[in-house]
Amino acid sequence: MKAVVYKGPRSIAVDQVDDAKIEHPCDVLVRITTTNICGSDLHMYEGRTSFETGRVFGHENLGQVIEVGPAVSKVKVGEYVVLPFNVACGFCKNCERQLSNYCLTMQPNPKFAGAAYGFADMGPYQGGQAELLRVPYGDYNCLRLGEDAAEKQTDYVMLADIFPTGWHATEMAEVYPGDSVVIYGAGPVGLMAAYSATLKSAGRVMVVDRHPDRLKLAESIGAIPIDYSQADPVQQVLDLTMGLGADAGCECVGYQAHDPSGEEHGEMTLNNLIASVRFTGRIGVVGVYVPQDPGAKDELAKQGKFPLDYGLMWFKGQKMGTGQCPVKKYNRALRDLVAAGKAKPSFVVSHEIALDEAPTAYENFDKREDGWTKVAMHPST
Amino acid sequence: MKAVVYKGPRSIAVDQVDDAKIEHPCDVLVRITTTNICGSDLHMYEGRTSFETGRVFGHENLGQVIEVGPAVSKVKVGEYVVLPFNVACGFCKNCERQLSNYCLTMQPNPKFAGAAYGFADMGPYQGGQAELLRVPYGDYNCLRLGEDAAEKQTDYVMLADIFPTGWHATEMAEVYPGDSVVIYGAGPVGLMAAYSATLKSAGRVMVVDRHPDRLKLAESIGAIPIDYSQADPVQQVLDLTMGLGADAGCECVGYQAHDPSGEEHGEMTLNNLIASVRFTGRIGVVGVYVPQDPGAKDELAKQGKFPLDYGLMWFKGQKMGTGQCPVKKYNRALRDLVAAGKAKPSFVVSHEIALDEAPTAYENFDKREDGWTKVAMHPST
Amino acid sequence: MKAVVYKGPRSIAVDQVDDAKIEHPCDVLVRITTTNICGSDLHMYEGRTSFETGRVFGHENLGQVIEVGPAVSKVKVGEYVVLPFNVACGFCKNCERQLSNYCLTMQPNPKFAGAAYGFADMGPYQGGQAELLRVPYGDYNCLRLGEDAAEKQTDYVMLADIFPTGWHATEMAEVYPGDSVVIYGAGPVGLMAAYSATLKSAGRVMVVDRHPDRLKLAESIGAIPIDYSQADPVQQVLDLTMGLGADAGCECVGYQAHDPSGEEHGEMTLNNLIASVRFTGRIGVVGVYVPQDPGAKDELAKQGKFPLDYGLMWFKGQKMGTGQCPVKKYNRALRDLVAAGKAKPSFVVSHEIALDEAPTAYENFDKREDGWTKVAMHPST
Amino acid sequence: MKAVVYKGPRSIAVDQVDDAKIEHPCDVLVRITTTNICGSDLHMYEGRTSFETGRVFGHENLGQVIEVGPAVSKVKVGEYVVLPFNVACGFCKNCERQLSNYCLTMQPNPKFAGAAYGFADMGPYQGGQAELLRVPYGDYNCLRLGEDAAEKQTDYVMLADIFPTGWHATEMAEVYPGDSVVIYGAGPVGLMAAYSATLKSAGRVMVVDRHPDRLKLAESIGAIPIDYSQADPVQQVLDLTMGLGADAGCECVGYQAHDPSGEEHGEMTLNNLIASVRFTGRIGVVGVYVPQDPGAKDELAKQGKFPLDYGLMWFKGQKMGTGQCPVKKYNRALRDLVAAGKAKPSFVVSHEIALDEAPTAYENFDKREDGWTKVAMHPST
Repeated sequence: MKAVVYKGPRSIAVDQVDDAKIEHPCDVLVRITTTNICGSDLHMYEGRTSFETGRVFGHENLGQVIEVGPAVSKVKVGEYVVLPFNVACGFCKNCERQLSNYCLTMQPNPKFAGAAYGFADMGPYQGGQAELLRVPYGDYNCLRLGEDAAEKQTDYVMLADIFPTGWHATEMAEVYPGDSVVIYGAGPVGLMAAYSATLKSAGRVMVVDRHPDRLKLAESIGAIPIDYSQADPVQQVLDLTMGLGADAGCECVGYQAHDPSGEEHGEMTLNNLIASVRFTGRIGVVGVYVPQDPGAKDELAKQGKFPLDYGLMWFKGQKMGTGQCPVKKYNRALRDLVAAGKAKPSFVVSHEIALDEAPTAYENFDKREDGWTKVAMHPST
Repeated sequence: MKAVVYKGPRSIAVDQVDDAKIEHPCDVLVRITTTNICGSDLHMYEGRTSFETGRVFGHENLGQVIEVGPAVSKVKVGEYVVLPFNVACGFCKNCERQLSNYCLTMQPNPKFAGAAYGFADMGPYQGGQAELLRVPYGDYNCLRLGEDAAEKQTDYVMLADIFPTGWHATEMAEVYPGDSVVIYGAGPVGLMAAYSATLKSAGRVMVVDRHPDRLKLAESIGAIPIDYSQADPVQQVLDLTMGLGADAGCECVGYQAHDPSGEEHGEMTLNNLIASVRFTGRIGVVGVYVPQDPGAKDELAKQGKFPLDYGLMWFKGQKMGTGQCPVKKYNRALRDLVAAGKAKPSFVVSHEIALDEAPTAYENFDKREDGWTKVAMHPST
Repeated sequence: MKAVVYKGPRSIAVDQVDDAKIEHPCDVLVRITTTNICGSDLHMYEGRTSFETGRVFGHENLGQVIEVGPAVSKVKVGEYVVLPFNVACGFCKNCERQLSNYCLTMQPNPKFAGAAYGFADMGPYQGGQAELLRVPYGDYNCLRLGEDAAEKQTDYVMLADIFPTGWHATEMAEVYPGDSVVIYGAGPVGLMAAYSATLKSAGRVMVVDRHPDRLKLAESIGAIPIDYSQADPVQQVLDLTMGLGADAGCECVGYQAHDPSGEEHGEMTLNNLIASVRFTGRIGVVGVYVPQDPGAKDELAKQGKFPLDYGLMWFKGQKMGTGQCPVKKYNRALRDLVAAGKAKPSFVVSHEIALDEAPTAYENFDKREDGWTKVAMHPST
Repeated sequence: MKAVVYKGPRSIAVDQVDDAKIEHPCDVLVRITTTNICGSDLHMYEGRTSFETGRVFGHENLGQVIEVGPAVSKVKVGEYVVLPFNVACGFCKNCERQLSNYCLTMQPNPKFAGAAYGFADMGPYQGGQAELLRVPYGDYNCLRLGEDAAEKQTDYVMLADIFPTGWHATEMAEVYPGDSVVIYGAGPVGLMAAYSATLKSAGRVMVVDRHPDRLKLAESIGAIPIDYSQADPVQQVLDLTMGLGADAGCECVGYQAHDPSGEEHGEMTLNNLIASVRFTGRIGVVGVYVPQDPGAKDELAKQGKFPLDYGLMWFKGQKMGTGQCPVKKYNRALRDLVAAGKAKPSFVVSHEIALDEAPTAYENFDKREDGWTKVAMHPST
């Protein structure tokens, strides 16, 4: 089968690789019809992780079931399914409490937890930027779609990662109807967080970024765009909230946050959040932070340390949730919203391409070329 | 009336001051029969805060009502009451959601939130290390006690601060029955957190400190003492939890944490918690951190910045709650536990003294003299 | 002042009564500019309660502050405020846990709990269908409005009762985004429940009634109308939910539920809910049920007993919440939604009248004349 | 293998039946070393259900794994495991939200939900009162035990049903530390509810029954025994709670509740709960109620209808949760409590017998012979 293979820093190719196949009685085999490029793919693409050359990318996957293992009972051949990026067992201490983001079974390193398709340090699972994908524990990991699946693929594929991840940010931030919410980052995840806050009837949603095209997308869903290259974003948020700060905040940027001059400051958005969220406020962090970052310039950042304004955070009595999203906790509800026509997350998709166009797409997306918000690929149709 | 007055760094006196009195129709006037010295008093005593000379200490107060304002309807003269250290209005946006720790009405600085008796930066309210105390919004702030009040004063006075504060640490850490819990700090608050975890039927409670007398007290309530001056506490916790780390962790030390050599490292216990709590674990931080600390040696600490192992925290998907305790959220339930004979928090009291003995007690407590765990004073009887 | 006074079954008059005035240091005096007639007023109007003749109706009140008691600190003269129908103290065991619907202080009968303006068995408080209203514990009970208050009065007045009450139904039913929800009753409260479910991004909202004008209003906010006079509503819900039943259900009718033939069957909607909500589903009941009903035809109903399909409810593992709404728990958030232009609950208002027109309005509303959905009165302007 | 087989009303035999065996790749085969007789077994034993003759009883099972299917990865041969009475898949809409009590996969009747071993209407699964038990989806359904398993079998076997079920009653009743709790029924489940409330640090636990031996057991764990054959239990609870009623209540009797004269009144304990729980109180019902009961004397009861004091329940704003327990939601935490020596639920066991003694044990247990609280059988050792 054809697949997007990692060759080394900023180098990928669409190669022929061994076909994915059923390897365990609980496996499901899916022919991928839509798979997205994610910001996390770029971390690996840039060579800043331990992702091994030769591996296949792709953790935002949707497709049609073409074969099921002998132990599979719910999922049927022919059904469209969307796969959470987390690969999970369904029965470990974490999965049974809806924490499939930190599955203890599928992660081979006993010091870690959690697994994913085509992801550095997240187990040996091949990605779905390919014609076929093997899905372990298919009955648990497949979310079945209805008759509108083929037609709404670019909406439903968002359930694999970024829509639930944005939603998770607002869950950790405990966004309640009427709340004012500030979101740092208007990339695809930040936009999904803003969209989630809107769907939850937040009173006011403020989105901080410096890319005009992304801020415009935020505005298109009713959010208030805040351009941090023009003025201090903290002051802008305070001005919009009677000086009190937002009720809730979401971090959707991560350790590669750039200041207005373009320099990387991993702690910047976190400290801005602490300053722009009110006393007793809640903060949800889905932007990625890493325990070690040998490529960082800063000595602390190399060790995964960040100089947080923790004194202020404690003084304000804030609460902070962190980490990857447990997609299964939300994907069923979000699917039903899409099915009911009440959510249309595909508004972030800027490009739909064939698998062969992956190398160009990675290059443009990595450069944050204007207008390259989100890329959906269609390996099969 | 007599009161414990701040004279300057490490200097207090028992002076005559103006009698506390009813100043507002909702006030209640209390004759203090028991009032404790708290670790937070020592921060002010040491001159490391903006606490003004001439002010009266004391935010852990219990006594008998001797007068009520004309608008007071619930509280009656003659009743014993215990006062949350937080001074709160009961009707602002925060109080109405049980966040009386961040009352917006009683704090005069519009950039802050929350108020307390005899506390730096927490409003003009005099402390209760005195014969009399004025309690604003008495119907809201007084917790009435039953007929056993006089006899069980050293238990009930713990409801003013440290018992609810320890409990709050376990609430923010979402301690569930059966959980393994690690608590950093075996001072009075840490001991109350350990006691709270025990009352919630935690499976295993581990308490980290280096003072043998405090570790012994922890052991006396069924906790596992961990002496961090003997061996790496993180490794000890991992060894006790099959290498996974504790389900939940509590920080009860604060920014003046000392390493085994006695040097101050504000971030030490936080980073130890991140390392010794499991993936998906929860951390509650009631130890005090401050936004500025001009007296700190470290440049970051001066600005209230702490180099956290945030990359690891995010990688593990941990959640962290911070800040002062909303005492009213818990004090009624804890009172009922004491009344039913199911909790006896006075086990931490090492010394009961008269008001006049305050200067000596502060001195000994500040030096952490062996056996000086907690001091209860009796201004009146 | 002029006020709507109860004269006896189905008889009211707009009379001159003593001016409302400040009676306690914490009182606030409000000049009423908008006050609604509620379905609960009709229970009293019909003479089916213990409501005393000579008392003034009106528990959905909004107006401008004209005087404040000496202990009031937050509310200022001149501000527009909307008053929760619950009269509450803010400091009893229930109020402090956000259960102001069951305040223990303001209800004079020690066997009851909860108080309200102009309401049978809910304390001596006069209603607001009058020129002036005395608001006890004004700082706690007044929700202050912004500059758009005068202009959006028919929206904001809904915060006094029916919008929070409908919202509360969905809270007790734990409506989660994507859920299918069935609501029995398309009166003003049922419509507000449907609107609340929509604001919470329910996937599918079904509303059961038999009045075409009300079903049309339900449809206008995106709900699916179900006419129970045409076909079995349970079967209609099952048909819309793959035979499984709705995830959540709301009861917004109460003990005067009528079957299609017009006969009263208090248990009817409850049993329909049990049948049309799924296994593990949640049900929120805000329709009124009473402990005694001497006027009922049925022997069980006289004693407040209803023959529920409890065997089925238990078998399905359903959860049920009941009772009046704690308005303060929600009114701030809903105010912020109205202020942000994200909610416009005035869509239920069918008639705006002067105080003098109250008798005619009660008569028409009581007869459920076509198109009389909700009446807003303006005693002052 | 030998097994306890149902022969007809009040008739069972220990027969030879076909060996249980692996039938699906995810199955686990367990040699049963301890299995209890449950009150629910008596419902079937008495012939009051649709339980088919020839079927094997037993849903409270513990034993040693002797074989695992090819898809099983976590559970190993030789381990001791305890099995939730619920048979569940782990991946349906309900299981994935920890509602394994209403699994949609394992229940063959599409109008029902939930499955169990050896249980009427709960699927075709044989019971564990036998030498061997087939456990479907073994990785999900087996709770693995540690090295103390063999020795503490009578404690750990309680994790199969009654300890989590009693715990669930207190969860649905939202028992919070300090609360007063009333429990109707001092059978094994009621005792476990009382024990759970105690472990959660309830302030006061009151247990209502009329059997002196059971009330004595309640007293032995610190509960207050209330004998309803001596005086009105509602009044006794009110007297113990300042006339207010208990904060929380648990129903652990079910539709076969008997009044003091010995007559069956299914609604009796429910109405007593509504009367003895306070305004805003919560009620958890784990006693069994059935949708149809052809054997009932009462016309309403035949149809599964019960005349509840619903008017009073609504007036008091109570909340009620119902249904079977999702054992997996709690069994891990409770296991850890037993392992830590902090819970010892075996205190209810009155008799330990061999499998062959089952017929006599059923007979005595069914007659509620004095001292027959709970029977543990040991088919293998």
